[in-house]
Amino acid sequence: MQRITIDPDQLGSSDTLQLTREQTHYLQRVLRLKSGDLFIAQDGAGHQWRSQLMEVSGQAKILSDLAPKPPPASLELVAALPKAGFDDVVRQATELGVTAIYPILSTRTLLKPSPKKIMRWQRIAQEASEQCERGHVPQIFAPESFEHWINNVPNNSGNFFCVARVNAPTLLTRVQSLLVDSPQQSLRVVVGPEGGWTNREITVAIAHGYQQTSLGSGILRATTASLTALAIVSSAREQLI
Amino acid sequence: MQRITIDPDQLGSSDTLQLTREQTHYLQRVLRLKSGDLFIAQDGAGHQWRSQLMEVSGQAKILSDLAPKPPPASLELVAALPKAGFDDVVRQATELGVTAIYPILSTRTLLKPSPKKIMRWQRIAQEASEQCERGHVPQIFAPESFEHWINNVPNNSGNFFCVARVNAPTLLTRVQSLLVDSPQQSLRVVVGPEGGWTNREITVAIAHGYQQTSLGSGILRATTASLTALAIVSSAREQLI
Repeated sequence: MQRITIDPDQLGSSDTLQLTREQTHYLQRVLRLKSGDLFIAQDGAGHQWRSQLMEVSGQAKILSDLAPKPPPASLELVAALPKAGFDDVVRQATELGVTAIYPILSTRTLLKPSPKKIMRWQRIAQEASEQCERGHVPQIFAPESFEHWINNVPNNSGNFFCVARVNAPTLLTRVQSLLVDSPQQSLRVVVGPEGGWTNREITVAIAHGYQQTSLGSGILRATTASLTALAIVSSAREQLI
Repeated sequence: MQRITIDPDQLGSSDTLQLTREQTHYLQRVLRLKSGDLFIAQDGAGHQWRSQLMEVSGQAKILSDLAPKPPPASLELVAALPKAGFDDVVRQATELGVTAIYPILSTRTLLKPSPKKIMRWQRIAQEASEQCERGHVPQIFAPESFEHWINNVPNNSGNFFCVARVNAPTLLTRVQSLLVDSPQQSLRVVVGPEGGWTNREITVAIAHGYQQTSLGSGILRATTASLTALAIVSSAREQLI
């Protein structure tokens, strides 16, 4: 069934749901739903409601609460912004179950994103979450410098710093050995820009307790590297469910 | 160093390399190489030569043979053509080390690709192989129906048929248990279209010896599913190197 993400404030008394103009347009014009048709409303934080479009334009009726989606185990992507293709990274990362995305301006990052971009990424993440029935929309942080990020984000033991052309254990090996002992461990993968991390950035990350890992012997584009890292980590976690 | 893919026929006697008009344009206009600059010529089948652009337009000199890239273990992607985004699948699959791609027209495939597409995909694969320094260009087959493909492609024991919303072992679990015993095993992953395989297609695949596998509990778009499957398989293989 089709899904839309709502703000809990839209839930009125007596089981009505006030749709925004955008949501009404999406349901009626894009998805072609008619009065009486059913859809699922989600709040992006696990709650979801079976809903029905009503005759009064912009209104829907909540038919029933659906079982809430349990909160996913934390999986963060920290990615130096690539020159192009980050929209796809956000979309595909959401499909793969990421819970937060930190876009990073590293030494070799060429892009200076406009503030509008964050809203765009947030919207892409929301749409991807609806499509892939995740029920949870990942949080997308404002781009920040590598220095600022690494000094301000709390550390945990599941931190993997992916480096190309390095002789280090693969991400799969590292993450599997970690999850065997603590399957619910929060995980964070950090992926570099085109041209890779500088030696200084690698040294700083290791000093902050990040484990250097390899995504394999091949050279991957920055955008492919992010998805590869998430696919690996998320499969290793699924394997234990 | 920058790479281009050449046809072995372009190698003349006395260490010269006759460049095509397209290659000359690419080296001089796109990569901005000048007479005397070095680049690597590869044949897409593992051979590679250190080369130097000469003053005479369209000519290069072979300076030395480089150690050939060993043939990669076979990794085939069989993918029902998605409505959009197959160009990216070809590019990213090449980065992840795929050796052959079979585009499939399944029951729920909506796209009827023009014959020009195959040439386009072949070119994308070649460029991706140059960028990611693979040295090998994957073979891309002409689109064919599911029936024709499954009845005509020889089977081997590393065949994984990815199905969404199925209660089956994950691809990672299946491929790791296979590779533990035979790390050089040829591998083939088969990924469905938007809307998934039909029950009949799943039954036929199983009858042909394909192992049903899951890519996890989430719902992935068709294009993301292809990359996820290849990322998993290729990491599981790298892990054993």
